[in-house]
Amino acid sequence: MPTASTSSFMPGSVALVGAGPGDADLLTLRAIKRLQEADVVLYDDLAGEEFMAFLKADVELVAVGKRAGHPSPRQDEVSRLIVAHAQRGQRVVRLKAGDPTVFARSDEELRAARDAGIEIEIVPGITTATAAAAALGASLTKRGVARRVQLVTGHDVDGRLPGDLDITALADPAATTCIYMGKATFPTLVARLIAAGLSPQTPAAIVESLGSPETRIFRGSVTELASRLATDPPPGACIILYGQAFATS
Amino acid sequence: MPTASTSSFMPGSVALVGAGPGDADLLTLRAIKRLQEADVVLYDDLAGEEFMAFLKADVELVAVGKRAGHPSPRQDEVSRLIVAHAQRGQRVVRLKAGDPTVFARSDEELRAARDAGIEIEIVPGITTATAAAAALGASLTKRGVARRVQLVTGHDVDGRLPGDLDITALADPAATTCIYMGKATFPTLVARLIAAGLSPQTPAAIVESLGSPETRIFRGSVTELASRLATDPPPGACIILYGQAFATS
Repeated sequence: MPTASTSSFMPGSVALVGAGPGDADLLTLRAIKRLQEADVVLYDDLAGEEFMAFLKADVELVAVGKRAGHPSPRQDEVSRLIVAHAQRGQRVVRLKAGDPTVFARSDEELRAARDAGIEIEIVPGITTATAAAAALGASLTKRGVARRVQLVTGHDVDGRLPGDLDITALADPAATTCIYMGKATFPTLVARLIAAGLSPQTPAAIVESLGSPETRIFRGSVTELASRLATDPPPGACIILYGQAFATS
Repeated sequence: MPTASTSSFMPGSVALVGAGPGDADLLTLRAIKRLQEADVVLYDDLAGEEFMAFLKADVELVAVGKRAGHPSPRQDEVSRLIVAHAQRGQRVVRLKAGDPTVFARSDEELRAARDAGIEIEIVPGITTATAAAAALGASLTKRGVARRVQLVTGHDVDGRLPGDLDITALADPAATTCIYMGKATFPTLVARLIAAGLSPQTPAAIVESLGSPETRIFRGSVTELASRLATDPPPGACIILYGQAFATS
């Protein structure tokens, strides 16, 4: 396996590693190398358990993800743990679903490590939007139809639709929009998008439980899928995509 | 290596495989598996030569990329070649830099294969924007600062700035913008963004020759980097990112 461009992973340093959508075979070689070298792995529940096969026998595992019905560590506590393990001289992997630079709170962990004088690198991962497009068998861009791809989060810290969304940008018929964590707020968003001029017939798709054998795909117009999510939401995590790129004709 | 979620790659079918930014260790396991199985690989010059180490000894290699000073096959000719090889019963890999669903013309190749009744799958790759963010050591999203990430192409079929860009969306101070293939047109774009209200001081970065040992990073305001690109553009391929997510303070 080529490793020429892989910098070394020193004791006392941190790697924010993108795990991709969940399928273990969508890990990159660099991510696997970091997992193999890690002395401690701080992971979310979203990261697949298959990844554990790559770890050293004596690796220290620290679960920091959200778990239904259980309290989860606060972000500042996660950052504190990363720094504390690195200061102990461990090689620290912070494993994140998707890509660490997209809706993953990495800015806070980067800041904490740097403030403590700790080396920290980012190992990119397949982000959920492009993995969802692959699952749909559709390109996010399409010449003359979809020139801009935008990734947004559908929920704010309080779980509601963020108040400062750029609705005009999100209603642009020439964009492809990928909404992370927007299952609960999509019906509200669609009402606002249609009020801003988006066609109610804009093609859309929900990809549920991406990266697992239970992946399900729901297709329809934004209106149909908003209605579906309002009345009968699928239980798994969902990414929602819409735009003319998904027109089937 | 786990392969549980990898569907089979049948003779006479096609895989659009994302090669990522160029570093061979940013290939995914699934991409490597497809390369190992391929009977023929249609590749762009952008795809790293290190990838060739994974191929079968008797693989058929077809260069379809653009090469300075040489004519390159038209997109419809690439689509025709993909179909012709699959119809011969070969396992066809169409290897693309980055992710196949982001500014990669995959929609045309998907359509051509489906019209011919040929199975075609997409194997996602690390897209240039997130690899660039990793190289910069910065998150594309930042709570309360950068809530929307947008990927756009900076040139049209004729090499000029696309005429139908959503300038208001691109001037949104709460977004992070990643411009693919925009080296020549960025000065023009920045003038339009500033006219639309974007701060001339908006932090930005150019990542040149991402995925190669020659990667160089240029940081500055959008105004400074536009001026740099107008007067002394770096020779390599560039991705340009801007937004408050890149503020260093």
